[in-house]
Amino acid sequence: MVVIRFLKRGEVILEHIHGGNIKGAVKKYDLDKEKIIDFSANINFLGPPEAVNEEIKANIGGIVNYPEPNSQELKDNLANKLNLSRENIIMGNGAVELIYLLTKVLNPSKSMVLSPTFSEYAIAAKSVGAEVEEFPLDREDNFKLDINTLLNKLDNVDLLFLCNPNNPTGNLLSKSEVIQILDYTKDNGVFLLVDEAFVDFVEKEVTVIDLINDYDNLFVLRSLTKFFAIPGLRVGYGVANQELIQRLSSSKDPWNLNYFAQIATKVALEEEEYIKRSKISIKKEKEFLYNKLKQIEKLRVYYPQVNYIFIDISATELTASYLENTLAKKGILIRNCNSYSGLGEDFIRVAVKSRADNLKLLSALEGIIDDRV
Amino acid sequence: MVVIRFLKRGEVILEHIHGGNIKGAVKKYDLDKEKIIDFSANINFLGPPEAVNEEIKANIGGIVNYPEPNSQELKDNLANKLNLSRENIIMGNGAVELIYLLTKVLNPSKSMVLSPTFSEYAIAAKSVGAEVEEFPLDREDNFKLDINTLLNKLDNVDLLFLCNPNNPTGNLLSKSEVIQILDYTKDNGVFLLVDEAFVDFVEKEVTVIDLINDYDNLFVLRSLTKFFAIPGLRVGYGVANQELIQRLSSSKDPWNLNYFAQIATKVALEEEEYIKRSKISIKKEKEFLYNKLKQIEKLRVYYPQVNYIFIDISATELTASYLENTLAKKGILIRNCNSYSGLGEDFIRVAVKSRADNLKLLSALEGIIDDRV
Repeated sequence: MVVIRFLKRGEVILEHIHGGNIKGAVKKYDLDKEKIIDFSANINFLGPPEAVNEEIKANIGGIVNYPEPNSQELKDNLANKLNLSRENIIMGNGAVELIYLLTKVLNPSKSMVLSPTFSEYAIAAKSVGAEVEEFPLDREDNFKLDINTLLNKLDNVDLLFLCNPNNPTGNLLSKSEVIQILDYTKDNGVFLLVDEAFVDFVEKEVTVIDLINDYDNLFVLRSLTKFFAIPGLRVGYGVANQELIQRLSSSKDPWNLNYFAQIATKVALEEEEYIKRSKISIKKEKEFLYNKLKQIEKLRVYYPQVNYIFIDISATELTASYLENTLAKKGILIRNCNSYSGLGEDFIRVAVKSRADNLKLLSALEGIIDDRV
Repeated sequence: MVVIRFLKRGEVILEHIHGGNIKGAVKKYDLDKEKIIDFSANINFLGPPEAVNEEIKANIGGIVNYPEPNSQELKDNLANKLNLSRENIIMGNGAVELIYLLTKVLNPSKSMVLSPTFSEYAIAAKSVGAEVEEFPLDREDNFKLDINTLLNKLDNVDLLFLCNPNNPTGNLLSKSEVIQILDYTKDNGVFLLVDEAFVDFVEKEVTVIDLINDYDNLFVLRSLTKFFAIPGLRVGYGVANQELIQRLSSSKDPWNLNYFAQIATKVALEEEEYIKRSKISIKKEKEFLYNKLKQIEKLRVYYPQVNYIFIDISATELTASYLENTLAKKGILIRNCNSYSGLGEDFIRVAVKSRADNLKLLSALEGIIDDRV
């Protein structure tokens, strides 16, 4: 019974439930993959820059070699863009890989997550045997974080996860609010992961990436697949003080980024015009979709700081699962938020997409809600 | 000083040194990338099946979606080929990712590695704070494993790493020898990782993949990138009892395999003719290169069971570093084995490549050795 002996840590086996599972939807609802409109994954609806597709097509032969160990060239490019040193950056096979790597290396006894938030923080912490406490965000207060109450709950917490903007609510902390948390946690021996996976979609300046050398308890997580619409390639990065980055790098294999992720990201980072155009288009469609959703009776729509919109559907007296299933049968995937702790069947999340797709969602939603009213 | 508190485990920061670093060689030796002949990475010299290139080219648009979570379809295909259940398989972002995942989940206090062997076992074990003991293979006995002596050294060992065939020596344990180790370790509470990364190149039947349901202390590791020549895509897998596989899957994110790794591997597995042709070509070139190397005075060449050849160069009175550098300046990369524990400057390893490339290596080697004799 040797295996049992080793499996003492992290006893509960947890399920990973997320949006963006096209294959799963095709099977479950018997859909034509080509006709699916996916509002369940929060990806830049413009799709990847054309230069990315061309770069891949021109370099398929490169798969015969190992990727460059530790993605040094890509790190140099990023360091340049971010005004940081290469030694402050670690590349991840998607940002989520780095959540698991950080929890492994920090090895916390107790961690704290807000609730609701991205579910992988808790799973990663439990995978190394950590206790995970949830700090509930108040629904009556629009899930806004009460910072002082949170800080008072951090006794014995080793690692605090903060998602800014938060997923799925879209709530945003200001830079000075994050600094308040950073100051307190630094003084009290709490490590802080700030997940800025969606920060590229935010118009305000909230990142704390420039503070990594002031706070040795800070790790800032970023995604490159959401803004550049390349989640299939897996690429994210983390930024922190050099000592921690070195320790993290030595605790994983050197080839975690595949070759296409490396070359596509290098090209994407240079696409200034695409970046500008994306921001304008997403802002415009976000406002459009938000305003139209608000006009649907009985939907309570949270104002989005990001490229996704969080919606309270409780007044419709429909469940999130009913909406999910009914829309899915029409080829429209949304994020049923019932897998987030504390949200029950009252919430959905939809990505901002193109005008044509947004109109289809609006029309389908109206139809379903009208039918039942 | 919160970070320091968390960094107690795995104090030594270790370097990852491997073959196949083309970008590094281009920089170090100022080479033209296109003219490099890489004998340092043990990849099928035929290159990927043409169908793989075509599959990627035809599906570049797929990068806009997340990869299928946990690679279910690919696992079904593999399960079918291997005569196993999907629940016995976990896919890895390269086989090496799974070494790190297994050590994290098993969380051993003490692990044992043979010496010399693939260096990532020790680094992975140290990354979770495990003590790592080396069991030295006897140079005087051709680095053959003395099983009985090894088994007597396993007191207090939680996790034993076995690479079969071994890298870099190419030594092979028979199936009954591995079973002897399995029986002993099962009875004595030792978990056994059998790394069969190169088993597809071996002519004899040595795999223990069919025994996973008889030994709950067994994890068999496999690579798909070496035989199918797609290391840039990162894809490997592990096979074990269902309980362990479930625990491992819940301890990592669900998107660890990128989209191209999934679709390329599915296609590659069906390439029966390519598989047959590869085996014939590699066998032929292996015999050719082995016999020609043996004719070079002062090289002691180990008979290869795999697609790479291990060579003792001590009689030439040249160092492995000298050979590595001198060949690299001619655009030929070999594996200097001085980073393997206990090998000093006496050994190199070369992959088996095409006849034309093998002839270039032979001629360059002869030239260098003649110059010095």
